[in-house]
Amino acid sequence: MKEENFLNIISKVMNNTSLLGDDCAYLSEYKIYVTCDNLIENVHFNLKTTDAFSLGYKSVAVNLSDLASNLSTPKYILVGLSLPNYIDEVFFKDLYCGINEICNKYNIKLAGGDITSSKHICISVCALGEKNKITARRKSNISLGDFVCVTGEFGSSALGFNILNNFNIKKYFQEENISYFIQKHIKPEPRIYEMFEILNNINSKNISMMDTSDGLGDALYKLSTINNVNLEIEFDKIPHHPDLKKISNYKDYIFWGGEDYELLFIINKDDYQKLDKNLFHKIGVVTENINTIPPVLIHYQNNTYDIINKEIYNKKVFNHFKGK
Amino acid sequence: MKEENFLNIISKVMNNTSLLGDDCAYLSEYKIYVTCDNLIENVHFNLKTTDAFSLGYKSVAVNLSDLASNLSTPKYILVGLSLPNYIDEVFFKDLYCGINEICNKYNIKLAGGDITSSKHICISVCALGEKNKITARRKSNISLGDFVCVTGEFGSSALGFNILNNFNIKKYFQEENISYFIQKHIKPEPRIYEMFEILNNINSKNISMMDTSDGLGDALYKLSTINNVNLEIEFDKIPHHPDLKKISNYKDYIFWGGEDYELLFIINKDDYQKLDKNLFHKIGVVTENINTIPPVLIHYQNNTYDIINKEIYNKKVFNHFKGK
Repeated sequence: MKEENFLNIISKVMNNTSLLGDDCAYLSEYKIYVTCDNLIENVHFNLKTTDAFSLGYKSVAVNLSDLASNLSTPKYILVGLSLPNYIDEVFFKDLYCGINEICNKYNIKLAGGDITSSKHICISVCALGEKNKITARRKSNISLGDFVCVTGEFGSSALGFNILNNFNIKKYFQEENISYFIQKHIKPEPRIYEMFEILNNINSKNISMMDTSDGLGDALYKLSTINNVNLEIEFDKIPHHPDLKKISNYKDYIFWGGEDYELLFIINKDDYQKLDKNLFHKIGVVTENINTIPPVLIHYQNNTYDIINKEIYNKKVFNHFKGK
Repeated sequence: MKEENFLNIISKVMNNTSLLGDDCAYLSEYKIYVTCDNLIENVHFNLKTTDAFSLGYKSVAVNLSDLASNLSTPKYILVGLSLPNYIDEVFFKDLYCGINEICNKYNIKLAGGDITSSKHICISVCALGEKNKITARRKSNISLGDFVCVTGEFGSSALGFNILNNFNIKKYFQEENISYFIQKHIKPEPRIYEMFEILNNINSKNISMMDTSDGLGDALYKLSTINNVNLEIEFDKIPHHPDLKKISNYKDYIFWGGEDYELLFIINKDDYQKLDKNLFHKIGVVTENINTIPPVLIHYQNNTYDIINKEIYNKKVFNHFKGK
């Protein structure tokens, strides 16, 4: 089964699904956004390749990334922890030190949780964030000529993951870069600082945005189809580490590697001019309403191109339920 | 390790723990309560003894019970689901039918969640509830002579659990009672209706209350020590099914069986008079400030008695991390 099938069943079964479909749900009577994520041992992480501190940090970071993609200021988290017998006090303490670090950094309070036993570690975090004057959803008011922008860089987290799981490729990279890629994977930074930069600088009341946790290709395809527009992307504008080109399929790392937790957003030209070009990178434009395929066109400098359409999306996107 | 040890580490590590320590955290700027619980396969349930529909229902019910114990009206849930390969569409659909039933019953909206794969089922539910004019916490203003009250009945859920896991004891009970006990265990009802009865009928602005998910003995000991009072309980006033007396250690079922999801609360005599005696049962009184031990005294009709003190509590209470 694919995630899509599960979501179809939920929308058929549940009488009220008005709040589903985005990264976060907006609860209008309290003006808050809520989101939750489960991190499972040997699915999302394993203890051979991560440490408890980073794991605690990341389990909160992935939720903050969802709030950031809605331009919502994170305020509270709840942490449900299920732990096997082999977890000792040192591991537990380190895990909470990681949780504490990210809570302090972004001024977030722990508002409770649950601790149970289990055969494998399961960390479920629920995060609450406040609405701001400018809001972001996947679907928004988009015009032809609007700019497609991103934060950060792409592919480094996926490369870190592969270095951790395949020692043979280590020899291609310098020691300091190896640490950098691994950190990108095991302790990603949610784009909260960049979110405040956007909030403080643009004029539009709402923008189209999502995070790239499932890959830049996934996010491009979704923003394009949800907003019913075509996107034309210039590949050489997409920020990525120069070492990536040492891998033959580095384009797959950039578009489909995932776990980047960067922001992809579409804003008008005037608003883009107000943003810090060191933090935000224009990678393309909105070209036309979507009655032509493909929804996403990627130009390369050598005059070749790639497309992302439904078929390619389904083949490339990370399936959380492979083999089902 | 015991739950207590984990909580000690959290309070040492985290810079801000002002919201911890109760069943729910109260977020004053939004006037909402939040709570979360993880249900883990082969720890909290197994698929030999429960069905998907009941499991979905129960996973929400246990969270609503926490909100009820704070007199908070449930409004939203988030559901994080981690599922193994052997889960098929039928199971998934039935699980969500159970979630839908309890959401409809209590007018609750699904506000999102997460679906991932895993080796064992992990269901983490986070629930949000609204503050009402009357509020409840474990610690409250309590006076000598106040009444100790409960909803529902005790021990039936634990008996259901034991019938499901030990077929030999089935022969002692009638078929219809067996179904009743099993239902009490696999599909418990949170005391939301009773919560509204309290809200609509009493005058006090706040009451001391918690649910009995970890057993009536656990709840009595905690309310007594947190509020610094002694409680005297009349055993024959504690509601329980007559069949329970067929088991030699039936008192253990009543006090320490757990998973009853009833409400235990302490209110003044005048407020108790306003409550429906079919729903609420006075089982004891607050006798004095706690400078004498034991905190909880249980009288039996034959002039014998039991006590619950720290030593007995530590021996009897369900430890979520046995063997650690």
